[in-house]
Amino acid sequence: SSATTPIRATLFPGDGIGPEIAESVKQVFQAAEVPIEWEEHYVGTTIDPRTQSFLTWESLESVRKNRVGLKGPMATPIGKGHRSLNLTLRKELNLYANVRPCYSLPGYKTRYDNVDLITIRENTEGEYSGLEHQVVRGVVESIKIITRQASLRVAEYAFHYAKAHGRERVSAIHKANIMQKTDGLFLKCCREVANKYPEIVYEEVVIDNCCMMLVKNPALFDVLVMPNLYGDIISDLCAGLIGGLGLTPSCNIGEGGIALAEAVHGSAPDIAGKNLANPTALLLSSVTMLRHLDLHDKADGIQNAILNTIAEGKYRTADLGGSSKTTEFTKAIIDHL
Amino acid sequence: SSATTPIRATLFPGDGIGPEIAESVKQVFQAAEVPIEWEEHYVGTTIDPRTQSFLTWESLESVRKNRVGLKGPMATPIGKGHRSLNLTLRKELNLYANVRPCYSLPGYKTRYDNVDLITIRENTEGEYSGLEHQVVRGVVESIKIITRQASLRVAEYAFHYAKAHGRERVSAIHKANIMQKTDGLFLKCCREVANKYPEIVYEEVVIDNCCMMLVKNPALFDVLVMPNLYGDIISDLCAGLIGGLGLTPSCNIGEGGIALAEAVHGSAPDIAGKNLANPTALLLSSVTMLRHLDLHDKADGIQNAILNTIAEGKYRTADLGGSSKTTEFTKAIIDHL
Ligand SMILES: CC(C)[C@H](C(=O)O)[C@@H](O)C(=O)O
Ligand SMILES: CC(C)[C@H](C(=O)O)[C@@H](O)C(=O)O
Repeated sequence: SSATTPIRATLFPGDGIGPEIAESVKQVFQAAEVPIEWEEHYVGTTIDPRTQSFLTWESLESVRKNRVGLKGPMATPIGKGHRSLNLTLRKELNLYANVRPCYSLPGYKTRYDNVDLITIRENTEGEYSGLEHQVVRGVVESIKIITRQASLRVAEYAFHYAKAHGRERVSAIHKANIMQKTDGLFLKCCREVANKYPEIVYEEVVIDNCCMMLVKNPALFDVLVMPNLYGDIISDLCAGLIGGLGLTPSCNIGEGGIALAEAVHGSAPDIAGKNLANPTALLLSSVTMLRHLDLHDKADGIQNAILNTIAEGKYRTADLGGSSKTTEFTKAIIDHL
Repeated sequence: SSATTPIRATLFPGDGIGPEIAESVKQVFQAAEVPIEWEEHYVGTTIDPRTQSFLTWESLESVRKNRVGLKGPMATPIGKGHRSLNLTLRKELNLYANVRPCYSLPGYKTRYDNVDLITIRENTEGEYSGLEHQVVRGVVESIKIITRQASLRVAEYAFHYAKAHGRERVSAIHKANIMQKTDGLFLKCCREVANKYPEIVYEEVVIDNCCMMLVKNPALFDVLVMPNLYGDIISDLCAGLIGGLGLTPSCNIGEGGIALAEAVHGSAPDIAGKNLANPTALLLSSVTMLRHLDLHDKADGIQNAILNTIAEGKYRTADLGGSSKTTEFTKAIIDHL
């Protein structure tokens, strides 16, 4: 019904339950007539020397060319001499910001109501520098790197996001009372950017206090921006507030407007191939991808169908206390479109 | 009524609300006939060159001599050329383990019931090394140091604590998938110690996952042991589960059996001197100090009186939704002894 030329997008179904939940996305997109043509790439079975990992060079090229992609869970094969799949993607595609919207799903009860948080995580440096060594026997060190360039870039993204999405407040999370140089530089960059957005409230919150306040009253926060490891910790904490990683979308933003959306939960090999997996996180991630492409009508339609299906409660996968198969849940979403 | 020679203990009332809540402890101890004689020390008004901070050398000597102490909140004066009061105490007294019991207070409702967690934090190194520098303009680094010695020491303490307190499980919290050298060494040390305690279940949990699981279901955990910054974060998160830092005790353990119990909340200058402060955290901290001294009868008596007073709900300070003054709440506890 649409005459638009389809947009090509890379799809990494991933492994474990990945292919099943990716299939769910493909079906929902087809039913919703999303003008997207998938270019599927699987993780290789040997190390590609050009990526130093099991990711093929071609698959990275595909994202670079399409500038938009969706990624299922990928378990990094065990062994030496190669890099983690997730970290390789972040590094090679320069995915500098990880955005995780975290909101309560209507009808799915947790201890918290009306959670509505966005965590924006610096995704390329900090504690993830990979610089580590033994100083002397029994004494090791890891180096955390913070740069002005990466800090400004993620801060810019956070404020831009806040403004574009009608958000009121950006909180920079840090431990600058202890790491004055690194987290201090991060804060300095956030402040510089904040000055350009006088309409957005800016505040700085120490990470320990932030975690305490999040569990006491998540409504105190809105958009949170932070260095890599704090983002890793706080985005999972926030996911916990609304039910876990199986329900939370994630999208990585790279230089040049690349967006790689992803389900951040594991590949759950124990239930793989059994039609039991919950595709919600990957589906909601695909919605963030659609929003990145400004396909807001499609995004709204799919998001509402997912949320209404869960709210109705008739079709839920086992992890949400139901007994629906992946395919039944997917069909219910399609019926709600 | 007791013929025991009193035990001398150092008391740092601290500042802000510190003196008021310290007074509450003194009164409760007197009423409970705790055989303790306080040696009070205040933060100095000038920098003591021997401690490079506003803490006087004499006050540190007092703790070293008495080997046991209690500390109210201390706001570090702003300015350069001196060290934070808390960090100075940890460094100078070699307070290597910070122990924070975190349990639901009967009758004080939060989103979580029956929380019962112990966080044991390495308190001397890790991300708190103070080693930081600018590499080039716009690029800064902080160094995290993990040593075999400090890791073994805190792991030993954690397992010893678990065994002595009838706990079943010790979880080591880490991010060794990213910081393989530093957190890897920490885990290696925990495993070595775990081998000596076959009766205690040992597990390793990645910090992001740990935070998610703590907010979903804190009952999954028992005793948690971890490097410095993770301990800072997780102990505050745990405090949030049961109502905040105003309700959670803390005790620092140093070499040679030193124990310095402390309220870890702030000095709340806004309500200082108004008889409004909640002394619960300092009182419960004083209880951990009594346990360290093996004065379990006194500890039980005071702890029960505090918990019963809060459970009864008639006398609660403003932070707990009541309207009692500090002195009224204290008197209620004494009446419950
Ligand atoms: C798997 C792990 C390396 C990764 C991280 O630490 O970034 C994960 O926790 C995440 O948040 O994507
Ligand atoms: C005040 C600050 C330096 C301190 C810390 O980070 O250790 C505090 O958060 C604590 O937990 O005692």
